[in-house]
Amino acid sequence: MLYVKTPEEVLALIESEFSPLEQAEFVALSEAVGRVLAEDIAAREYVPDFDRSTVDGFAVRASDTFGCSDAIPAILPLQATVLMGEGADYLLNEGKCVAVPTGGAVPRGTDGVVMVEYTEDYGDGTIGVAKPAAPGMNLIFRGDDVYPGKVILHKGRSLSSADIGALAAIGRVQVPVVKKVTVGVISTGDELVPPEAQPGPGQVRDVNSPMLEAMLSTFGCHVVNYGIVVDDEALLSQKVNQAIAECDAVLLSGGSSVGVKDAACRIIESAGQLLLHGIAIKPGKPTILGKAGKKPIVGLPGHPVAAYFITKLFVQPLLGRLMDRDMTVYTVTARVTESISANHGRAQYHCCRLTGTGGELYAQPIRGKSGLITTLAGTDGYFCISRDCEGLPQGAEIQVTITSGV
Amino acid sequence: MLYVKTPEEVLALIESEFSPLEQAEFVALSEAVGRVLAEDIAAREYVPDFDRSTVDGFAVRASDTFGCSDAIPAILPLQATVLMGEGADYLLNEGKCVAVPTGGAVPRGTDGVVMVEYTEDYGDGTIGVAKPAAPGMNLIFRGDDVYPGKVILHKGRSLSSADIGALAAIGRVQVPVVKKVTVGVISTGDELVPPEAQPGPGQVRDVNSPMLEAMLSTFGCHVVNYGIVVDDEALLSQKVNQAIAECDAVLLSGGSSVGVKDAACRIIESAGQLLLHGIAIKPGKPTILGKAGKKPIVGLPGHPVAAYFITKLFVQPLLGRLMDRDMTVYTVTARVTESISANHGRAQYHCCRLTGTGGELYAQPIRGKSGLITTLAGTDGYFCISRDCEGLPQGAEIQVTITSGV
Repeated sequence: MLYVKTPEEVLALIESEFSPLEQAEFVALSEAVGRVLAEDIAAREYVPDFDRSTVDGFAVRASDTFGCSDAIPAILPLQATVLMGEGADYLLNEGKCVAVPTGGAVPRGTDGVVMVEYTEDYGDGTIGVAKPAAPGMNLIFRGDDVYPGKVILHKGRSLSSADIGALAAIGRVQVPVVKKVTVGVISTGDELVPPEAQPGPGQVRDVNSPMLEAMLSTFGCHVVNYGIVVDDEALLSQKVNQAIAECDAVLLSGGSSVGVKDAACRIIESAGQLLLHGIAIKPGKPTILGKAGKKPIVGLPGHPVAAYFITKLFVQPLLGRLMDRDMTVYTVTARVTESISANHGRAQYHCCRLTGTGGELYAQPIRGKSGLITTLAGTDGYFCISRDCEGLPQGAEIQVTITSGV
Repeated sequence: MLYVKTPEEVLALIESEFSPLEQAEFVALSEAVGRVLAEDIAAREYVPDFDRSTVDGFAVRASDTFGCSDAIPAILPLQATVLMGEGADYLLNEGKCVAVPTGGAVPRGTDGVVMVEYTEDYGDGTIGVAKPAAPGMNLIFRGDDVYPGKVILHKGRSLSSADIGALAAIGRVQVPVVKKVTVGVISTGDELVPPEAQPGPGQVRDVNSPMLEAMLSTFGCHVVNYGIVVDDEALLSQKVNQAIAECDAVLLSGGSSVGVKDAACRIIESAGQLLLHGIAIKPGKPTILGKAGKKPIVGLPGHPVAAYFITKLFVQPLLGRLMDRDMTVYTVTARVTESISANHGRAQYHCCRLTGTGGELYAQPIRGKSGLITTLAGTDGYFCISRDCEGLPQGAEIQVTITSGV
């Protein structure tokens, strides 16, 4: 017998019952943003590979400039001029200087660069320096950015644009990433017609298939859409088994009625093992989780709003587990614009619109009957009223997970 | 003469000098997530198009159940059984009930549904109801979700997965979105080699091209990479003019040295009009903005960290303006883990790593010399120390813009 589990118990179950697939592939740098790193990335060389100036000016031995000023400039003969993109593989002689551009190499022996603004070219091959250089000033030394063996990015990270820049800097143009998890999506229900169809009497459009495809593709999965299956246990069983064979995970959405739920349980049990039947959460209680071998099968509620929350809260962490992906989610602090009651005993999720700016955000809960997709459309995020809370007064501080754009 | 402008002045300049391109196209629902809506979306029909039950149970006239209880159930003859996906285009007779599945249609005259848990089938064609139905209970009425003319999504919104669900519900499978803005990216500098090359003496890899491509493609732009151009004004001018002809906007990255900056200004002036030379921000001061006709040309600093911040803070809003895109950005509240000093007079940006959870986040500023790409890699977000602030003490509350994964 399977009892209803709390959200924390469900996440622990996912952690214990499923393991990372450990399937990696190499992709080009231009394809790597948003992908999950399959291994730690360590540099293999020094970046930069030479001491560089950070300004336009003159490379000096700092001690040659000590004590100089506008009134008594240090006068240093110009030994050479460095050009961008060329080396400076010679010694800066004592008492001399070398002209360098921003980003240019400096000769050996340089330990400071004086900005051109603080110098004067006397036109006779000497440079007047009116401001002393402190050792290290305006210089980036070899390996300041990275050095061989330095880990710059860790396994499991979803690569950001800034990470792409760092990979470019160390020449990693083929990036080891986790293979995309393939997720099969099946919608069940005699009442469902495809989104492009005009519903007849008693029929509604299939919302979950396109919504789940959008949620999972933006999460970095490959989605196989198996379309709509009528409430027929044999047909459904056949389609589920096909999806198990072809995918890494299967989502069976719909079948809110008791008979179909029972059928979904039987299909999962015959394909493998039933792990969970019911989560203490609103909306989304009638959720099923099982596995066939190592592959998860999730029975999602048919109501789009419930399917949405179950996917955000449990399916994405489950797929993240298969991808060994860092699942840190940040929330923004806001105040609810109206009081809101809650069901004692079940964690309760609400979508909201946000107004205000920066540290002073206000969250307007979107109310609506279960299953109304318009309680999701155009919202900015969602928040949770925990199971031991009886409701929130107007102005209460909440943590909102942002969903706009994803 | 152009003076250095504050960030607020630069954003106002973008608003006044550039206009939305107003170029729309239709894409399939499966391609629409993350795209920007080109017009308000209003429903054309009722969703649902019929009164539906939200539970498995019996459709009733609520008044027929008033006063019933476990002890004295209301006994209602079963008039009919509704099947999923079929209509119920008949009248519920007074004093009778109709069996309905979750999501099924209910007959006319129904104003409540009793859950099956509170009923008993006596086996003689009558149903015992042990709990009265309040009017409207367990029902979604025609048009409760949407009705013709109701605007469910507004122009300028970047479509979320939930929005995709709502579009599916109303049958909008071809979605009017703003055409992707095409951005040309040019890197200049004699010291640059492509990321896949091994730098020679005095050379470094081009970090900005791949980083900008990642930043702008995740922002929903089409990026044309024009590669690396050496510091030659004629060549650079030719390439910029080619990019202006082929793209909606041009980013010229690099050329940190004085001579090249001057060349970039001259090229922008000869192609159109120079609007801005310098922003009071650190890093990123040496930024240029101009326009050729209606097309923006941005001269970005060569330092990757400076180029990154200028792109986040000004180039994305600029491209957002061309796309008429809602640019709301949410920040999370955190406390700095160490004190940090600031340059009075220039807004100062720092990347950070976040630790902690929910409402108690800690931000560790990543320190490093300007231009070090490792001050960006692996970070979770960034924060600003405003120009009128001389620094932050340890534990000070800051607003962090999250960048991990984007």
